[in-house]
Amino acid sequence: METRELARFIVCSQFGDIPGSVQDEAVRALVNWLGGALGGCLEPAFETALDALASQFGPAQATLLGRGDRADALWSAFFNALGSSALDFGDAHIATRIQPSAPVAAALFAAAEHRSGSGAQVVHAFCIGVEVACRAGLALGVQQDDHGRHNTATCGVLGAAAACAKLLCLDEQATSAALGIAATQAAGLNVVLGTPARSIDVAFAARNGLMAALLAEKGCTASDLALEGKRGFLSVLGGAQSAVAPLQELGTSWEVARLAYKPFACDFVLHPAVSACLELRHEYALRPSQIVSVGLRVAPVVLQIAATRTPQTGLESKQSVFHGAAVAFVDGTAGVRQFQDQRARNGRVAELRARVEAIADPQLGPDEAHVEVTLRDSRRYERRTRTVPGGPARPLTDAALSEKFRLLAQEVLATDQAERLLALIWNIRALGEIGSIVRASVAECEAEPAELPGSPLIPR
Amino acid sequence: METRELARFIVCSQFGDIPGSVQDEAVRALVNWLGGALGGCLEPAFETALDALASQFGPAQATLLGRGDRADALWSAFFNALGSSALDFGDAHIATRIQPSAPVAAALFAAAEHRSGSGAQVVHAFCIGVEVACRAGLALGVQQDDHGRHNTATCGVLGAAAACAKLLCLDEQATSAALGIAATQAAGLNVVLGTPARSIDVAFAARNGLMAALLAEKGCTASDLALEGKRGFLSVLGGAQSAVAPLQELGTSWEVARLAYKPFACDFVLHPAVSACLELRHEYALRPSQIVSVGLRVAPVVLQIAATRTPQTGLESKQSVFHGAAVAFVDGTAGVRQFQDQRARNGRVAELRARVEAIADPQLGPDEAHVEVTLRDSRRYERRTRTVPGGPARPLTDAALSEKFRLLAQEVLATDQAERLLALIWNIRALGEIGSIVRASVAECEAEPAELPGSPLIPR
Repeated sequence: METRELARFIVCSQFGDIPGSVQDEAVRALVNWLGGALGGCLEPAFETALDALASQFGPAQATLLGRGDRADALWSAFFNALGSSALDFGDAHIATRIQPSAPVAAALFAAAEHRSGSGAQVVHAFCIGVEVACRAGLALGVQQDDHGRHNTATCGVLGAAAACAKLLCLDEQATSAALGIAATQAAGLNVVLGTPARSIDVAFAARNGLMAALLAEKGCTASDLALEGKRGFLSVLGGAQSAVAPLQELGTSWEVARLAYKPFACDFVLHPAVSACLELRHEYALRPSQIVSVGLRVAPVVLQIAATRTPQTGLESKQSVFHGAAVAFVDGTAGVRQFQDQRARNGRVAELRARVEAIADPQLGPDEAHVEVTLRDSRRYERRTRTVPGGPARPLTDAALSEKFRLLAQEVLATDQAERLLALIWNIRALGEIGSIVRASVAECEAEPAELPGSPLIPR
Repeated sequence: METRELARFIVCSQFGDIPGSVQDEAVRALVNWLGGALGGCLEPAFETALDALASQFGPAQATLLGRGDRADALWSAFFNALGSSALDFGDAHIATRIQPSAPVAAALFAAAEHRSGSGAQVVHAFCIGVEVACRAGLALGVQQDDHGRHNTATCGVLGAAAACAKLLCLDEQATSAALGIAATQAAGLNVVLGTPARSIDVAFAARNGLMAALLAEKGCTASDLALEGKRGFLSVLGGAQSAVAPLQELGTSWEVARLAYKPFACDFVLHPAVSACLELRHEYALRPSQIVSVGLRVAPVVLQIAATRTPQTGLESKQSVFHGAAVAFVDGTAGVRQFQDQRARNGRVAELRARVEAIADPQLGPDEAHVEVTLRDSRRYERRTRTVPGGPARPLTDAALSEKFRLLAQEVLATDQAERLLALIWNIRALGEIGSIVRASVAECEAEPAELPGSPLIPR
């Protein structure tokens, strides 16, 4: 994965060369992301960080989505990524588990609001950023270092830098520099999963990616071998096996078309198991009191990063496959409320959670799981998930994405305001400047009829 | 290296418990650091970053040393670390090659100016920060991953966070959180050595360390196993062998007493070889035209991170042991000018540089090198460096540190202003608030006689 070659691709990419279906998928990803940003902007991790850092804000260049506070572009990128990551309810690139939209879109929206970027520019740069983040993840290799790194952050900073370099129209040399500066800022440890620092990682990735592009724009340089060099990103973060990773089909095959949009508000690795539990619960109308035990077989990574046995907080519960299975059977759903502090500490949930067992099965892929539930009357039911819900093989419809958006937006917007914003984001490609979306994300703002699209609410 | 235990040490440490000789060494390190910050604040890397980022500055909470621009505390930390790192002329912890003063002191000065910290508080917190940064480096192990990581940054962010946590009087829980937030931001790749991004790494470390403390102060949490956990700092950055590193003699043995202050303006790993070359040149009054060849034997790390054969820029020349040897023989010195663009491209230097050969000798320690020079008349001279100049075994005197300071300060201050600032920094422990030093670092500022120390210029 050569830095210079990647820079050349970014510079040469034309929006018109991206297939319409890929562009459509990018818009779907942005609808999914924006809802998450609204849903997460009142979360405790967001409030704490705002309390700590608002005193450091620079001039009002960009908006904190859903809140209306204004800050310099870098802090806007930080907080919008923090908000959209706080609920762990965004997207996931199945092969790498990277959640690229949060760092990439947050950096882009801040940069585009500050520099008056158009909707089409943002969608184009978003495709680029997601591509770079996910390809970096693929290049590192999924098995590297026992899942120690929080790759949504380590690869997200590269994606954010690539996207912002495109939006700012940097030339090849400057784009290479932006990638290099971002590479040497790649950070994030999975030990903080289940804590507020997880979202802070993603926030840093967005901010530092934009910052890399701003530095490169003025001539700051790094190494043109920042990715592939002996002491570069791939070698140091991925080990020897990943140091020379290919850039095959760059510009013809797009990773943004391989995103899943989470139907459940928890770590993506829980999704196959939760999905199977929900299916069993609904198909057989199971009640928790009937259940003697739940046996899960899951991909090994699940027990490496999501095996919290007795979560004490909502954030911890998002990293607990035991909790995910328990709420699926107790509540029959796995939305935001199922992964809040209250639910993590709920007696009925805890009681069933203790009866869930899980074993790692190396034969299972990242979107597979097997569940066997044993009832008091000795009946047994089992279910195998082979494709993860929300992923390309079982996609959320546009209508379902809109519903998810409405659910999350209601935290900060009245119904009519949410509908107006939803219409704007579905039609983002037609917007002359991204600021109209940003302003519509804030409850107090007036409608802007001039920018309202004439096309139907959901264009597909 | 347990996060909670380290946090407890930081919280419980009392300034009075730190031996006077250790405090004295901390003051010497700060004199050395402050000179570097003044000398580097006009460097191109600094100017470029300021050009790119000044539009993002928040309220005037703290000063850019030597410049007088004011910014929010986080940007002040960033730029003061960038300035003090830009010339690569600061300090080095011999065992780890970490240069802890830049990230730790820059974060501290910004925090202390903003929060009206006293000189004694800064010196105390500085001892803590250097201790944490260097112990983290020792825990990672010097041989980890083929020197891929820029540990001045990866460990510096921990040191900066620890120092700021102490300065802000965080309790044990919050200090642990600050360490955790910093750990998950640990970043920096050695592929960018020899480019402006190297100093940017150090700048991020200072800024992110302070930011970790500010976030923790308001209640943001990370993992209490951030350092020692399975997917934590030591395991992911250092590999399995370093995951459980001891905290022996914490509070009784101080790493700040094991710093070297660079006499040469280049990567620390060049110092033993450059020192030997300078000794030969002066002892035998050698002229470049006499020299047929220079043969170096150096520690393996030298050829891993400082083997640039034909540096094209000053920054690249700081990573070239060939260049270091060449300027030692051509110029008879190895100061700031010897590692500038002009000297990197100089014909006479390049001509001799091409006659320098180097081989890696695993028997040589980090402060050792062997040089053999062959003259046209077939004479041969050799010299072995066994202790690095500027290190604890061959320390710079206080007078030499003052001279180094004057040399660097003259870039931005008139002679009398430099002397006044020098007197203040030597007497930092007596200062009621750190702002007096900061203000005296700027040419336009008036003297502040009330804070001038009554004691002699150089107290030891």
